[in-house]
Amino acid sequence: MKALVFEDVHHPVRFSEVAVPKLNEGEVWVDVMAAALNHRDVWITKGLYPGLQPGVVLGSDACVLYEGKQYLINPNVNWGPDPRVGGKSYSILGMPTHGTFCEKMAIAKDRLVPKPEHLSSVQAAAMPLGGLTAFRALMKKGKCTSKDRVCINGIGGGVALIVMQFALAAGAEVWVTSSSDEKISKAKDLGAVGGQNYRHDGWHKALQSQSGGFDIIIDSAGGPGFNNLLKIANPGARIVTYGGSAGAIEKLSPQILFWKQLEIHGTTMGNDQEFLEMVEFVDQHKIVPVLDRIYSLEEGPQAFARMDQGSQFGKIVFEI
Amino acid sequence: MKALVFEDVHHPVRFSEVAVPKLNEGEVWVDVMAAALNHRDVWITKGLYPGLQPGVVLGSDACVLYEGKQYLINPNVNWGPDPRVGGKSYSILGMPTHGTFCEKMAIAKDRLVPKPEHLSSVQAAAMPLGGLTAFRALMKKGKCTSKDRVCINGIGGGVALIVMQFALAAGAEVWVTSSSDEKISKAKDLGAVGGQNYRHDGWHKALQSQSGGFDIIIDSAGGPGFNNLLKIANPGARIVTYGGSAGAIEKLSPQILFWKQLEIHGTTMGNDQEFLEMVEFVDQHKIVPVLDRIYSLEEGPQAFARMDQGSQFGKIVFEI
Repeated sequence: MKALVFEDVHHPVRFSEVAVPKLNEGEVWVDVMAAALNHRDVWITKGLYPGLQPGVVLGSDACVLYEGKQYLINPNVNWGPDPRVGGKSYSILGMPTHGTFCEKMAIAKDRLVPKPEHLSSVQAAAMPLGGLTAFRALMKKGKCTSKDRVCINGIGGGVALIVMQFALAAGAEVWVTSSSDEKISKAKDLGAVGGQNYRHDGWHKALQSQSGGFDIIIDSAGGPGFNNLLKIANPGARIVTYGGSAGAIEKLSPQILFWKQLEIHGTTMGNDQEFLEMVEFVDQHKIVPVLDRIYSLEEGPQAFARMDQGSQFGKIVFEI
Repeated sequence: MKALVFEDVHHPVRFSEVAVPKLNEGEVWVDVMAAALNHRDVWITKGLYPGLQPGVVLGSDACVLYEGKQYLINPNVNWGPDPRVGGKSYSILGMPTHGTFCEKMAIAKDRLVPKPEHLSSVQAAAMPLGGLTAFRALMKKGKCTSKDRVCINGIGGGVALIVMQFALAAGAEVWVTSSSDEKISKAKDLGAVGGQNYRHDGWHKALQSQSGGFDIIIDSAGGPGFNNLLKIANPGARIVTYGGSAGAIEKLSPQILFWKQLEIHGTTMGNDQEFLEMVEFVDQHKIVPVLDRIYSLEEGPQAFARMDQGSQFGKIVFEI
């Protein structure tokens, strides 16, 4: 069968013929209908993950067909017993185990969760990894309710957009930041009240005075600007970070942290129970993920390049 | 009556004659039997608090006599409706309202909580502000259980020592850090398993390899060394900070934060419900605070100087 395979960090992702893997105990064959791209896949091809193995089929997200029914795939592999954190043998589908960018895969049957009926297979494929990350970040770590005002940084990325949709579904008030005025404008079309371009000096002061401050802030940048998030946080606020694209956090004020009784939560992915709760939440609120572009597997290198450039607004999906 | 009064930031605390204040609605007269010093009092005399008013009697902690019975004083003034954070009219006893470093005070009757029987009045006076800060930090933010390994930084300070006593009472394993080998040794006498001097290079690596890493870390320094706390944190750990004596936090890694699913909590004091739970915890576990030295009110300037030098091990108390 054909698949998108990681070769090594000196080559782009490769569309090539691979053997259909054997079934291990507890696994079943499924046909992949659609699979979505995540930043993780791009970072793997750049060598930014530990334990990389050549020849592995990439991809963590998929909607699959099994015995005539469609399922989402839970991309957690062996989360382990502690709900707070994955155990030592935990990994994410698509490295080091074979992933979803292929026609047919072997997957543990307990990873299959029925697809919500309101989603097409392409829409459903966009949900697993980003939805799980967003759900834990916003609902579990941020404890979002309808009384909260939420700031979502870097709107346009897959996780950030799902966070926005979940926050709106929870009845919260949503504001966004981006380096692109166009992305802020699109976010407003989707329900955000307003936003600021973080390339502009004093963006956080403007956002603070427009909004009145935030109860929850969701960030994936970190970096020297992170301390500004403490300034726009309301007393008792939760700041949740699931990325560090802007590097180390500098000049963080412990005084603001303790006087405002703030919480900072680092989070990535979520446990199996949270995956089930996320799919239930999507079903209950009939949430449809924002899609950027749909590619064939053969167009894999173009899809990876689009995500690497950061020009997408919403999820990039392969229809298979 | 005689009292220790804040004059201005150019003068040390003054032992002087003041009028007994009038009773407001809901207030009663109490005789102060003992009152304890906190860093807050020292910082006020240095002008490091907003809204300072000359002529205010200092002091947040006390054991008082009212109608023949002894009570602890809850130092919260108007916490407000949100359990997470004090409201806009919230303050701490002793600035801007008159505090406990005096012979007789007017206090709202609902601030009086019966003294646990196992404590003397001098011991009881050492508990309110530090105990409340420690209880919220360790038990509420850190969620301490008997399964946790706890690191307490800067052992010797009043709050840090109470945190240690609470953690031991909860059945947790306790390790400490200090700039003084003598203080580490004293902490081991009180039940800590071990500790490291943070003035030594590589202290965090030594502590990590000795202990196996920490589920809860309680800090009041912040500063450039804070990122080392992330390195010695176990996955899922809670890092709780109630101070910033070493200044801004630098080079904090968002990657360690999210890969380890860490939480950082800023905290100061606690709400009224937590105060009641703290006193109940102290009563249940028969906890006796560590006392450094006992002074008379007249010796106020010496007591303030001792805390300012940081040479104390345990609480500094005035017997009145």
